[in-house]
Amino acid sequence: MKNIAMRIRYDGTNYHGWQRQKNGITIQEVIEDALTDLTGEPVKVTGCSRTDAGVHALDYVFHFMSDTNIPVEKLPYALNYRLNEDVSAVEAWEAPEDFHARFSAKGKRYIYRIQNAKTKNPFLNRYSWHIPYHLNVEDMMKAAPILEGTHDFAGFMAAGGDQKTTVRTIRVCRVEQDPQMPESITVTVEADAFLYNMVRIITGTLAEVGFGRIRVEDMPEILASCDRTRCGLTAPPQGLFLKKVYYDLG
Amino acid sequence: MKNIAMRIRYDGTNYHGWQRQKNGITIQEVIEDALTDLTGEPVKVTGCSRTDAGVHALDYVFHFMSDTNIPVEKLPYALNYRLNEDVSAVEAWEAPEDFHARFSAKGKRYIYRIQNAKTKNPFLNRYSWHIPYHLNVEDMMKAAPILEGTHDFAGFMAAGGDQKTTVRTIRVCRVEQDPQMPESITVTVEADAFLYNMVRIITGTLAEVGFGRIRVEDMPEILASCDRTRCGLTAPPQGLFLKKVYYDLG
Repeated sequence: MKNIAMRIRYDGTNYHGWQRQKNGITIQEVIEDALTDLTGEPVKVTGCSRTDAGVHALDYVFHFMSDTNIPVEKLPYALNYRLNEDVSAVEAWEAPEDFHARFSAKGKRYIYRIQNAKTKNPFLNRYSWHIPYHLNVEDMMKAAPILEGTHDFAGFMAAGGDQKTTVRTIRVCRVEQDPQMPESITVTVEADAFLYNMVRIITGTLAEVGFGRIRVEDMPEILASCDRTRCGLTAPPQGLFLKKVYYDLG
Repeated sequence: MKNIAMRIRYDGTNYHGWQRQKNGITIQEVIEDALTDLTGEPVKVTGCSRTDAGVHALDYVFHFMSDTNIPVEKLPYALNYRLNEDVSAVEAWEAPEDFHARFSAKGKRYIYRIQNAKTKNPFLNRYSWHIPYHLNVEDMMKAAPILEGTHDFAGFMAAGGDQKTTVRTIRVCRVEQDPQMPESITVTVEADAFLYNMVRIITGTLAEVGFGRIRVEDMPEILASCDRTRCGLTAPPQGLFLKKVYYDLG
């Protein structure tokens, strides 16, 4: 048996997230069905993260055990013939026996895209949060790095997580504005691991800073309070992209 | 009665093109229903072009006659509340009595997007033609400008047009490759007016040049032949965007 790791990307618009469930189609189900069909053996895959309904991935890694004779490097092409337009396999490799897509990950980077314009852009609606009000982007840029470092992020977590600790290390938290297209604002968050809905709550909180409802100078206290009600709303799913999963691949 | 001109953009993926028809939902129908609802009077709009099913518009202009009391510059915002995520009104203005979205146009610019990569990118599939084979982009760049100028483009037209002449003037015909993302290739065609499926046939022909099946040096003769069978296939609709409509707005 080989432990095979695979890198994919997907447009999550039409899916109930990654994890297989009874209520609707998920990315895991689409992948497992295609791999089962391709290899002729029942395949169960383990993903690097549960992504929510409507969230996208530019880089998502999963692993699975298989006896397939198909050369590993050819698996993505063979699989893509069985996948629809929303999901694409990019790369596969034979991983060490103990590689685990979730537990071996050393960190992840997410980006969250905001379109800040009076009128909605049809080409961005599936891939961003439309905010028609004025945002003070400079203040958002100042507030974001305050969240960098090792902190208890209990205030930035939705109910429903199953973690032992709410301490996480954010390596990068920044807000950028496209100079060519100032209405396009991107929040980047890289951390060792994430709490449930953490990036969407960080983005919602930074948006409150942009609206002027949270002051930059109050951010350290809000972070320290560990109080969900002092942070912003949870930003909607369609602006969120898993951008990169990091491993020590030796 | 005012003659009101409006600029919109739309993602054509889920529509049977611009023009109202019995077989499926169209952009014209969505716009007319929303304007009728907004103004309380039955509205008929006239568009700048018939776009085919699946084709997109970054800039599309139509006009309509109306007695509405809503200030013209506020119409786009009021209309956007009644439009879905696929269509967005950008700008409206009171046009001269004789302004006609189609007949007053001095020209149009289209772009056609190709993704040239082994595996499909889920975020580009709705908005480009995926070509998994090697393309000689340099040859495509050389072939495109050969079509510039005033010529009889009868060979670059699908059956079904109702034009009096097949002579058109192409002002710009060029192929560009994104240096940051070489798999992204864009064909730009600007002309005084277009024949049915003209840009998609030009793109299909340039793709044949990229495949090496049509030689750059044969392009002038193929153009002069006015023979549809010597040109390339019609490229699929989802890569085509109406980019700009030009008027003398005085």
